[in-house]
Amino acid sequence: MRDAFHEDLDRVSDQLVEMTRLASSAMSRATTALLDADITLAESVIENDAHIDQLREELDMLAIQLLARQQPVATDLRIVVTAMRMSSDIERMGDLARHVAKVARLRFPHSAVPADIRAIILQMGQVAERIVEKAGSIIAAKDAAAARTLEKEDDAMDDLHRELFVKLSDDWQHGTEAAVDITLVGRYYERFADHAVSVARRVVFLVTGEWEPESVTDHEEAEDSSR
Amino acid sequence: MRDAFHEDLDRVSDQLVEMTRLASSAMSRATTALLDADITLAESVIENDAHIDQLREELDMLAIQLLARQQPVATDLRIVVTAMRMSSDIERMGDLARHVAKVARLRFPHSAVPADIRAIILQMGQVAERIVEKAGSIIAAKDAAAARTLEKEDDAMDDLHRELFVKLSDDWQHGTEAAVDITLVGRYYERFADHAVSVARRVVFLVTGEWEPESVTDHEEAEDSSR
Repeated sequence: MRDAFHEDLDRVSDQLVEMTRLASSAMSRATTALLDADITLAESVIENDAHIDQLREELDMLAIQLLARQQPVATDLRIVVTAMRMSSDIERMGDLARHVAKVARLRFPHSAVPADIRAIILQMGQVAERIVEKAGSIIAAKDAAAARTLEKEDDAMDDLHRELFVKLSDDWQHGTEAAVDITLVGRYYERFADHAVSVARRVVFLVTGEWEPESVTDHEEAEDSSR
Repeated sequence: MRDAFHEDLDRVSDQLVEMTRLASSAMSRATTALLDADITLAESVIENDAHIDQLREELDMLAIQLLARQQPVATDLRIVVTAMRMSSDIERMGDLARHVAKVARLRFPHSAVPADIRAIILQMGQVAERIVEKAGSIIAAKDAAAARTLEKEDDAMDDLHRELFVKLSDDWQHGTEAAVDITLVGRYYERFADHAVSVARRVVFLVTGEWEPESVTDHEEAEDSSR
């Protein structure tokens, strides 16, 4: 029979999964709003981000109560701290979707995305959606093996981000304002994916007790080409 | 005689102050590296960021041990959770300084900052330094009143950020690559200041027990003009 602590942890886990669902929906809708200059959709993403923030507050409260009631041992405390870091990552993902939606809103009635950039942005949106949905499955299933495959999706996002920077060279024909928009939007998608990977790596930690730092060199190289 | 819990909290507080010192140093040096195309300085900022990350890990460990040993009541738990959020904010500030340094490194031997943009960047660096030093003092003194004045510094940063966006219009003469660099750098400074304000607001919460949400409208308006 599962003890009360582990039942409470299941509630925490469920809340994290729910947050990933909301972050996924937010980023999908933000991408659509951006590509289609859909201001109503953009506004709804911007408004609904408060819901993800609220869930994070509730999760921290759950965690606090867990620690107060159960008098857990050190390992259990680490689990709770890790869950709180995960909720922080997912909340940040929601914020990034909101930032994408704000770019969409800012440029309405035009799309902020030049025609020859649409394909990259669409793909970034698709990778973002895949990566956060996988993160949610990984949390729900406590699947450390699947967590490791998420890094490949992140590599896909880094590749797209690099493609974007190639376009954002001095051959760019769409004006500075569009370059500014696309620079920021590209960064929002890239950071979204990074946070999803961070969430998945914490699941690995929870399941195995081991923190597997990404190769610093690889990530720095990816970062270097994308600032 | 102060109980053991409050002595441990003092250690947590001292660690947070130390982290703000490092973040302040990092951003000052990153700003200098950026303006002076100083690659050695840039490299040192990039390397030393790991130290701030390490302090954050240690702080979370301190917090965990605190909760395990002291069997604190709910209020005490909220304090510990809040301290952990503050360390997360300050770690992020260190990351942002590292991102500024990476832009500096990327464009070496040139400065990434066009001549007519130097004044704004210099000022952003100065505001950033002031704001994080104030945040450190506020933590050390548990000074809720001073925390409220920090928002003015953040307003100063938002104003500079808006100035930058005015320059980053279609009159921009420095090429797309420089526009991309300055867009990102501007955002790093602006987020640095936001995190410092967040840290200060948490001190208000710790001291007064009240969370004073910023006016959403004001911040959204500032964000809208800066994406």
